[in-house]
Amino acid sequence: MSSLQHVNPTVRGIRVSPQSVLQSLAVRISQEVTQGVPKPFKQVIDVSSGDPHKSGLKPMSFLRQVLAVCVYPELLNNEGLSLDVRLRAQRLLEACDGGSVGSYGQSSGVPHVKQSIVEFISRRDAGVSSNTEHIFISPGSQVALRIIVILLARGEEETQSAVLTPMPCPHTLPMLVEEAGVKLVPYHLIEEQGWAVDLDELHRALKAARGRYEPRAMYISNPGNPTGHVQDRKSIEEVIQFAAAERLLLLVDEVYQDSVYGPDKEFISYKKVLSEMNSEYSETVELISFHSLSSTCMGECGLRAGYMEMVNMDPEVKHTVYNMRSAHAPVTGQLALELMINPPTPGEPSYDKYTQEILLIQATLSQNARRAWQFLNDLPWMSCQPAMGGIYLYPRLHLPSELIEQAKMLGMEADVLYCQKLLEEEGVCLGAGSENGQDDQRYHVRLCVLAPPATVEEVLARLRTFHLRLLDRFP
Amino acid sequence: MSSLQHVNPTVRGIRVSPQSVLQSLAVRISQEVTQGVPKPFKQVIDVSSGDPHKSGLKPMSFLRQVLAVCVYPELLNNEGLSLDVRLRAQRLLEACDGGSVGSYGQSSGVPHVKQSIVEFISRRDAGVSSNTEHIFISPGSQVALRIIVILLARGEEETQSAVLTPMPCPHTLPMLVEEAGVKLVPYHLIEEQGWAVDLDELHRALKAARGRYEPRAMYISNPGNPTGHVQDRKSIEEVIQFAAAERLLLLVDEVYQDSVYGPDKEFISYKKVLSEMNSEYSETVELISFHSLSSTCMGECGLRAGYMEMVNMDPEVKHTVYNMRSAHAPVTGQLALELMINPPTPGEPSYDKYTQEILLIQATLSQNARRAWQFLNDLPWMSCQPAMGGIYLYPRLHLPSELIEQAKMLGMEADVLYCQKLLEEEGVCLGAGSENGQDDQRYHVRLCVLAPPATVEEVLARLRTFHLRLLDRFP
Repeated sequence: MSSLQHVNPTVRGIRVSPQSVLQSLAVRISQEVTQGVPKPFKQVIDVSSGDPHKSGLKPMSFLRQVLAVCVYPELLNNEGLSLDVRLRAQRLLEACDGGSVGSYGQSSGVPHVKQSIVEFISRRDAGVSSNTEHIFISPGSQVALRIIVILLARGEEETQSAVLTPMPCPHTLPMLVEEAGVKLVPYHLIEEQGWAVDLDELHRALKAARGRYEPRAMYISNPGNPTGHVQDRKSIEEVIQFAAAERLLLLVDEVYQDSVYGPDKEFISYKKVLSEMNSEYSETVELISFHSLSSTCMGECGLRAGYMEMVNMDPEVKHTVYNMRSAHAPVTGQLALELMINPPTPGEPSYDKYTQEILLIQATLSQNARRAWQFLNDLPWMSCQPAMGGIYLYPRLHLPSELIEQAKMLGMEADVLYCQKLLEEEGVCLGAGSENGQDDQRYHVRLCVLAPPATVEEVLARLRTFHLRLLDRFP
Repeated sequence: MSSLQHVNPTVRGIRVSPQSVLQSLAVRISQEVTQGVPKPFKQVIDVSSGDPHKSGLKPMSFLRQVLAVCVYPELLNNEGLSLDVRLRAQRLLEACDGGSVGSYGQSSGVPHVKQSIVEFISRRDAGVSSNTEHIFISPGSQVALRIIVILLARGEEETQSAVLTPMPCPHTLPMLVEEAGVKLVPYHLIEEQGWAVDLDELHRALKAARGRYEPRAMYISNPGNPTGHVQDRKSIEEVIQFAAAERLLLLVDEVYQDSVYGPDKEFISYKKVLSEMNSEYSETVELISFHSLSSTCMGECGLRAGYMEMVNMDPEVKHTVYNMRSAHAPVTGQLALELMINPPTPGEPSYDKYTQEILLIQATLSQNARRAWQFLNDLPWMSCQPAMGGIYLYPRLHLPSELIEQAKMLGMEADVLYCQKLLEEEGVCLGAGSENGQDDQRYHVRLCVLAPPATVEEVLARLRTFHLRLLDRFP
């Protein structure tokens, strides 16, 4: 281990992402600001990814109250906390081994939480049944997805497994797939149609991959990350039919299911659509849906919990998943997950406050998304599809060719150069589209709008200042 | 993915451990008891591994109070909680991004917690300095160890990497090493000397492995898991000299550092011993020490946090560790880790209660260990080395040859058969020594004594009943 030459070759290959480079720069500039180095801004604002509490949004009181009682059960006697809070905490504590959040719990999750998850899924999907044996709780959706991608990998002597992956895709995905030794095969979403999935493009991508790789799964996020696209029933059916015909495992990232705000748009789960199709599909198509405590309006990233539901999966594969011991979710996170999917109901003392809080955050998100979309579209050399759900806007930059040339000479992507200059000059950290897998000479940036409105306004103002100045420099 | 045949061959190879078999059986029998199936016992007691809160031990009030306030900061105004609790919570909240345990925090850990860790290490080691850049916080010591073992693995075309591993070793270790594609090369601890490390045996093991494998690291646990052995300075120096001469990375599991109770025994860290050796050692030997929130007297397994300190490691290797994104510890766990290593000090309102609680649990542990050791040594066909630290006793079973033959016919290890019969007949789940890597025709069982004294008494009584009856059957 005395030098990197001897480190595992797969791991050695892990590259530093543009986002890491930008975020390292953001941290460095923040430190300089703290140290009093003169800058044209008072603080760095990082909206390259979702971290709602860091940005200043507040947690849900009910969730935190119940969790505090679970952590310190003496609070069960604290009459300053409402009765439903204490009763819920008592029920959750009874579900923990030894009545403590400090016990391990079963590796696939606390049984009571798994039971709540299947009831939540069934309510959400208008009665379609679920089963605790199909649920696996993990420390976030990424960890669960990583386990599945590792299962898809093959030995070195075999044809490399591949996952059909949308372009753009979540910025964390390319490295997750690559680290597992699996090939990412891109299919392009149609920007001009609000980033819709195109069936011809899926066939093209699959055909291009076959022979060189063994495509075994298809990934899709709905609502789209970072696109904000929300699929309708017909689009979901088409994807399922495609997956069935091509025998692909469907990996569906549905972590933004509570964040759909486009007019006349609604979230429909893949599971529900699949369950209503013919049995040739509903009983055969392998589907894994991911959900998370981090990505929703709860925004509880630091508590580390999520789950996956595995539909039509081989029991032996499920067994292998359960045997992988790398994914033990913290019990505090699991209980928070239970509170997220099982909020107060009408008549309970905490219901009104909870409802106010959740409506406020949903309204903030949708208003931010609309405001930023209009603002960005009004800028020259920029165009932006409206987001129908999720937490990102993903505007396209129509960059001057001189800037693109300059980036080439510096050996970097033009969108990364754009973000780096913006960060240095105005203290705003956006995500570069190249990290979302974008490699088609179309440049984009990624902007998280799940943040306080004043923060979003500040980001937009600084972005406009920078953008217009940049265009002046490259007239 | 429609069948296990297509699953990643490394993962497919994951075998179900004897412990999993026994624990599955324990769960099944527990369910039968709940359902009213008549059994000769009222409940199953599982002491095969450490899960102190599950067994009925209580968490530290101070830790839980501060953590509750961090989860629900409105409690900062609750005068029912003492001032030092609220002040500490305030300081920890200030260390969280956005003042919330719901924000991600940096991937290698919350900086304030890392700072507390280096101060703790320096106090513990009488002033030997530490550095936050050498600290990596993870969701438990196992996850950190797994990352390092994965780094040690090599490509399929190269000689397989190996880790010198004590026999017996922690029961979770063999599979962790195997899953990473690394070879476990056993060295035997000397049972008759209280499970001491033997230098000749280390040389024998290394020589036997060289040529077939590439030994790159040596693992050791001190205090020993499951042996209860505590190394003295001389033994530690010998191991360091051996590792230096053979250019092995030292992986030192020091998770029971707060649990040393043998007469005249004390915990001395490898880091401290190394720092006091000649610079040919102190500046070159690569050492990683693991610590955990789960394994100490805190017993906070469900909160998922631990850390590793990397000494003399190549900066690029450390950088690779930081880039691996699979190990984000929950912020709640990280704060609990800070509270563990930075307890109340004399004069603070919480000091007395904290001290009482920690002394009580340490006394419970050492008295249980002594009591169980005497009890087990009094049983026929059983012998037990005294534990000087840690949470296990590891008695040897001198089994009748008929039982060993019976196990062979059933295709199982004799210690597993012993544990299975004990579980079925008396409802006590012990760990089988074969899972601790024991393959030398010496049979052992593993018994966690970090549990309420009444539980340990009940386990011992049932064990004696079973053991004597078994001997009657095989006279």
